[in-house]
Amino acid sequence: MQLVLNRPLDMHVHLRQEEMLQNVTPFTAQQFAGAVCMPNTLPPVDSVERYDAYVAKIKAAAAPYEFDPYVPLFFHEGLTREELAPARERLFGVKLYPAGVTTNSEAGVAEMSKIEPVLDVLQDLDLPLLVHGETNGYSHDREREFMSVYDHFARTFPKLRITMEHITTVEAAEFLEKHDNVFATATLHHLLYTMDDMLGGPFNPFLFCKPIIKSPKDREAIQSLVIQGHPKLMFGSDSAPHTEVMKRTEGAAGCFTSPVLLPGLAQFFEDHDILDQLQSFVSDRALEIYGVNPPERSVVLERKEWTVPPRYGSVVPVNAGETMRWAVVDPEVESA
Amino acid sequence: MQLVLNRPLDMHVHLRQEEMLQNVTPFTAQQFAGAVCMPNTLPPVDSVERYDAYVAKIKAAAAPYEFDPYVPLFFHEGLTREELAPARERLFGVKLYPAGVTTNSEAGVAEMSKIEPVLDVLQDLDLPLLVHGETNGYSHDREREFMSVYDHFARTFPKLRITMEHITTVEAAEFLEKHDNVFATATLHHLLYTMDDMLGGPFNPFLFCKPIIKSPKDREAIQSLVIQGHPKLMFGSDSAPHTEVMKRTEGAAGCFTSPVLLPGLAQFFEDHDILDQLQSFVSDRALEIYGVNPPERSVVLERKEWTVPPRYGSVVPVNAGETMRWAVVDPEVESA
Repeated sequence: MQLVLNRPLDMHVHLRQEEMLQNVTPFTAQQFAGAVCMPNTLPPVDSVERYDAYVAKIKAAAAPYEFDPYVPLFFHEGLTREELAPARERLFGVKLYPAGVTTNSEAGVAEMSKIEPVLDVLQDLDLPLLVHGETNGYSHDREREFMSVYDHFARTFPKLRITMEHITTVEAAEFLEKHDNVFATATLHHLLYTMDDMLGGPFNPFLFCKPIIKSPKDREAIQSLVIQGHPKLMFGSDSAPHTEVMKRTEGAAGCFTSPVLLPGLAQFFEDHDILDQLQSFVSDRALEIYGVNPPERSVVLERKEWTVPPRYGSVVPVNAGETMRWAVVDPEVESA
Repeated sequence: MQLVLNRPLDMHVHLRQEEMLQNVTPFTAQQFAGAVCMPNTLPPVDSVERYDAYVAKIKAAAAPYEFDPYVPLFFHEGLTREELAPARERLFGVKLYPAGVTTNSEAGVAEMSKIEPVLDVLQDLDLPLLVHGETNGYSHDREREFMSVYDHFARTFPKLRITMEHITTVEAAEFLEKHDNVFATATLHHLLYTMDDMLGGPFNPFLFCKPIIKSPKDREAIQSLVIQGHPKLMFGSDSAPHTEVMKRTEGAAGCFTSPVLLPGLAQFFEDHDILDQLQSFVSDRALEIYGVNPPERSVVLERKEWTVPPRYGSVVPVNAGETMRWAVVDPEVESA
């Protein structure tokens, strides 16, 4: 049994830099025709010049796969119409990180009240705003507490497309109904797991991420959006690799899910008898919401068991050692 | 400035076995005249014979400190009046673990409904019941969900002294008011920290324990009991050492707090201007509730800064590398 996905997209992934970029990009490029590649590198991708350089590096790392990297600029108060307008056609959007909430977000926004002039420019240029929506409050409440910020942005800039990235809570799921200009992405791991999978038994550092994986009720809210085929919810993995050493000794936050994404999604959609909706979740809605035009590629999944390796280079994937029911059929690998 | 504590007691500690027992026992014996030493060893301390052997080993490891180990027997359905009654005078109590909820609890109780005959024997012999009160539910709710079991036990056996070990939640704090025969212990780490200290930033495996450290509201409830000097709340550290390797690679649950207990408590009590209540929390209430008779020792703390070492042998303590304001004055060390 095969499943053919046309132009699948991962609308939120961290491809990192240097050696890590080389190691992890093929997993994304193999399974997806395009991906929103996050700009929280060191230094961040916070200018058009750095944007062009990072896009080129990702494309090189993705070869021979035909793959479009959509890199949102790292939001900062210094972004100007003068810089953005001439590059508008090749830019994808802007990604806002509150300062200090996740990996390499130290350069993020400390005061939300000061950024409205930039949001005004984004709205004028029709550049979407992607947001890591967490406050600096108690970890379980960070996303819930951020809803008032989304609400303010959505009301003040009604023509600005705003995406709540990697939503994880009942409150975010409900908020999706509130404004026409607010969209969301959801990850595979927040769809499948609760905090108990990370720390209910022995601690599993490979499920430690920001936003933290939450309660059964929160998971149920995200699952419900996916199962009902919510038209404003797109797939974005938030796959965020760190080396095993960084995970184990530095407590780095991020789940490396890239190698298991389409197989894991196919499993979930099959378990809920909605395989026919997978195309919409992993591609159609993003095409419509963002108007992107990724390469005309199909990715084929086959219903065939395989075991996830214990590590890929220096990185341990989610589901390491587990058996998956769906496998990616890769013509590049077959012909190699 | 000095603070003299008379016969301080740690009413919940894991001293482990073999090399670990030798490594960690001195920290407890230095600071406490006695301690409730938990029986979840391999195999568990589940018979009078194993009890006698474990008590002897702890006393040997505690030398030259005068130190009384109170070892509750590991609860199982096979405990009988015939075994317990003749040893009543030297036994301390019994510790109930639901199966699978924490380290080495696999031999614990799977069905609470089946154990009433044993509870009846305990009540008759006036042997206290110490309980790890967690269900197998979602980690944040395990203790809250267990309150109905405590309630049933307390009603059915009104003369049985029941101690809710290491309480961590608003619900457990409130439950303490409900039955005259229900008492509780609280740890230093649940008094000081919330889940954010463990995973709000990078993950800190050395604050990973069961029951899991909880929310600000839950912490506030425990702090409030301590600050008001609740007569049914005793200090029990739940210090639970694992090697650094086990913590980092196996995700073992347990906080090793032994080396910092009295200094950490003195800091908290000083910060809340209740230093005069520390004696009651770390000794007087336990003497009254349990009627134990530890060695007549005083332990002296001095207001003097020291830095917690990065590790003690193979074990990383909580507060490693941090500066403490109070230090234990140890005549054994001074004279060595």
